[in-house]
Amino acid sequence: MRSPRIGVFDSGVGGLTVLSKLVELMPGAEYHYFGDTARVPYGGRASETIIGYSRQGLNYLASMGADLLVVACNTSSAIALPTLKGMFDIPVIGVVEDGVGVAISHARRGVLVLGTRATVKSGVYQHAIAVQRPDLPVRGVACPLFVPVVEEGLANAYLAEEVVRHYLQSCDDFDYDAILLGCTHFPIISTAIRNFVNKDVSVLDPSARVAERVRTILSGFSISSRDQPDIHFHVTDASESFKSVASMMGFSNVDQVTHVDVAGL
Amino acid sequence: MRSPRIGVFDSGVGGLTVLSKLVELMPGAEYHYFGDTARVPYGGRASETIIGYSRQGLNYLASMGADLLVVACNTSSAIALPTLKGMFDIPVIGVVEDGVGVAISHARRGVLVLGTRATVKSGVYQHAIAVQRPDLPVRGVACPLFVPVVEEGLANAYLAEEVVRHYLQSCDDFDYDAILLGCTHFPIISTAIRNFVNKDVSVLDPSARVAERVRTILSGFSISSRDQPDIHFHVTDASESFKSVASMMGFSNVDQVTHVDVAGL
Repeated sequence: MRSPRIGVFDSGVGGLTVLSKLVELMPGAEYHYFGDTARVPYGGRASETIIGYSRQGLNYLASMGADLLVVACNTSSAIALPTLKGMFDIPVIGVVEDGVGVAISHARRGVLVLGTRATVKSGVYQHAIAVQRPDLPVRGVACPLFVPVVEEGLANAYLAEEVVRHYLQSCDDFDYDAILLGCTHFPIISTAIRNFVNKDVSVLDPSARVAERVRTILSGFSISSRDQPDIHFHVTDASESFKSVASMMGFSNVDQVTHVDVAGL
Repeated sequence: MRSPRIGVFDSGVGGLTVLSKLVELMPGAEYHYFGDTARVPYGGRASETIIGYSRQGLNYLASMGADLLVVACNTSSAIALPTLKGMFDIPVIGVVEDGVGVAISHARRGVLVLGTRATVKSGVYQHAIAVQRPDLPVRGVACPLFVPVVEEGLANAYLAEEVVRHYLQSCDDFDYDAILLGCTHFPIISTAIRNFVNKDVSVLDPSARVAERVRTILSGFSISSRDQPDIHFHVTDASESFKSVASMMGFSNVDQVTHVDVAGL
């Protein structure tokens, strides 16, 4: 069996946090990363818009010959995946179940789920956690400004601390010992989140768990041993900011970014 | 001559500030407002994306039978208008020249132009002001977080003051007595801007001047006298936030918002 080809879908740069973990675990696979940078952010848009945009991106990745699709975007995983999953004849993996898994294995007193407006409003995390751990209090908090702060490269600026305070200070009445980062952008702003909360609160990023699950699903493939990972980037907007965030995150071949139009797919 | 039909284009809700002024001045005209709420914000995207999206929205408004198109979005006015203007057989009005006009008539010592990343990078305001008033120092400041703060309804929150401070405190070395709001979203956050700057600084919103110019261009039409303005809203995303911002701004008929797809236009 040949080396697998993995398609990673995201609304923008956030899914690079998932891609990093995948490459770390399976450096010999072939990767196609799609970022819908011309239409990011998804998190405040209507469900039908999120479903339509996600379908176009996944169709594009499937047309690249992917063996498996990872919906790294939590908003798409929460809103679009239930509708779109059955439309493909290859596995389509979301990130919600791994978020739920990491939350219930770490939280004791209560879990705060941070996400976009659409993800939190959907209630998928709150519902799935309640099904598996009915005793565990859960609160969802929409943090719509985290994505623009990250996309603007301000995650480590003083302003990020103020934005985190804005959303988290309203949770002082809730007793939690775990924060679930329910958006792939949020690991990038996690230092500001850690600085705000008590030391005994775990800040949980599900991406390593997503990568482990993908490896298990693809265990029938033989993964080639390669020094340099084979990653192809596809974006809907030709702006420079994708390249700068990607190289800040350690991706070296960002000069070869393909600009694509998926509106007709 | 019948009453004119005016098309107002914006990337999202920001152009409602211009629509307000138009309705105030010409309550008897017929208005079609288009907000590209499924793809807002434009201000950080590549030029070709901004031009493509703007063309689709303007094509849509032209297909409604508009007599004149107002590009209320400064990013589109700065980046797309020079390319698109010649493609229509009706007048297409941007907002840049009115911004320049209001700045040079008010500023004495120096003018700070606030805009999106794309608008400021284009240099259109800085260049046009320098041509007409070579003696007047100008500095452009990209404020990319203002749009998400406004779209999230946080313009009057404490956080808005911190976001304004983040961008304006780096201008302490520049002597200015006027701030030009070079984005239609920014009048909505202008209280926070006024609170930050010295009392002798004028904060300038070009929208009233845009409306005056439109009235002049349309002076050949006979504008009917109507109690209730005839406004039709068209948006690319069916989310509730457009309705809530529009009714907060005093528009009463926001129940009749049409959800449209312009990607193929």
